[in-house]
Amino acid sequence: MKALEEKIIAEGKICPGHILKVGNFLNQRLDTDFLFEMGREIHRLFESDNVTKIVTVEASGIAIAMAAAFYFHVPAVFAKKGKCANVTGEVYSSTVHSYTYDRDFDVMIAKEYVSAEDRVLIVDDFLATGEAVAGLADIVDQAGATLVGVCAAIEKGFQKGGDNLRAKGIRVESLAIIDDMDGEGIKFRP
Amino acid sequence: MKALEEKIIAEGKICPGHILKVGNFLNQRLDTDFLFEMGREIHRLFESDNVTKIVTVEASGIAIAMAAAFYFHVPAVFAKKGKCANVTGEVYSSTVHSYTYDRDFDVMIAKEYVSAEDRVLIVDDFLATGEAVAGLADIVDQAGATLVGVCAAIEKGFQKGGDNLRAKGIRVESLAIIDDMDGEGIKFRP
Repeated sequence: MKALEEKIIAEGKICPGHILKVGNFLNQRLDTDFLFEMGREIHRLFESDNVTKIVTVEASGIAIAMAAAFYFHVPAVFAKKGKCANVTGEVYSSTVHSYTYDRDFDVMIAKEYVSAEDRVLIVDDFLATGEAVAGLADIVDQAGATLVGVCAAIEKGFQKGGDNLRAKGIRVESLAIIDDMDGEGIKFRP
Repeated sequence: MKALEEKIIAEGKICPGHILKVGNFLNQRLDTDFLFEMGREIHRLFESDNVTKIVTVEASGIAIAMAAAFYFHVPAVFAKKGKCANVTGEVYSSTVHSYTYDRDFDVMIAKEYVSAEDRVLIVDDFLATGEAVAGLADIVDQAGATLVGVCAAIEKGFQKGGDNLRAKGIRVESLAIIDDMDGEGIKFRP
């Protein structure tokens, strides 16, 4: 998505540790109109896949998931992280390692919110090592649901998470794939 | 909002400790079309107030904030909770007590995302004791911005947070106000 690549170049900030800060439009400050443009693109990519549910993880995945869900007219379900007083009853859970925070945490979805009949599209803001997505895919699998694919706004191609998922046969579409951001600028995958 | 009251009665679950679980449409599972109906109603209530920014708090406020922001065509900014590696530089912060989790935490917004020129509408999923909203209002004040009002999807009227804010002269609109849910059912404020 060319507009996203341009926005990353214009507004993104590269920080030490391969961190790309896009807090100005995708994370803390949500550029509403642009998020819905991305949501429309996600819908275009998966509109023929009979998606019944969007699944993401709190907190930074919720906005892009909502924007996509708007066009699909399907519910969005966000996994909660860690032990949470507000998730009661039976849950699906999976353990995930966060490289940003360098610790393990659980992602959890109440069983009643994903069913074997669901055709799930996983949506997230970033796809880097793929740990979070693997945890969500594990939950989809536990539920006996069908994983239609994965769509991240920004994939850090050099961290291989996306390609590892593709190697497993999972359809992964990212709106922008960064293959290098170590050098002078940001190099996108064509 | 009559449709919301009906939905609370149909899908909400009352749990001990004055907790109303609406995970089926407002929290963990987001009923997309219904959230955008609520967003449209929030826009209707504040459309003449020249809102330039929606402010909420992660994670459960993000979905309703996005739905409202869609109709206003303004950015949504969500405050982060606790110490966070991804918020760098100068931040506005305020300390909030969570009754759900019985602990204090900080809400933080990077200074660059709220400015003195902003006319801010605070949006959240729940308004109970009003602690979270008071923290966000404090941040709006620190930024020198104008607080246009507060709009919660569900206000727990019996916990007085909304009325305390109103007593301070803040315009508070809630899409549904629950005055009692101790007894046989849920009693809404007319």
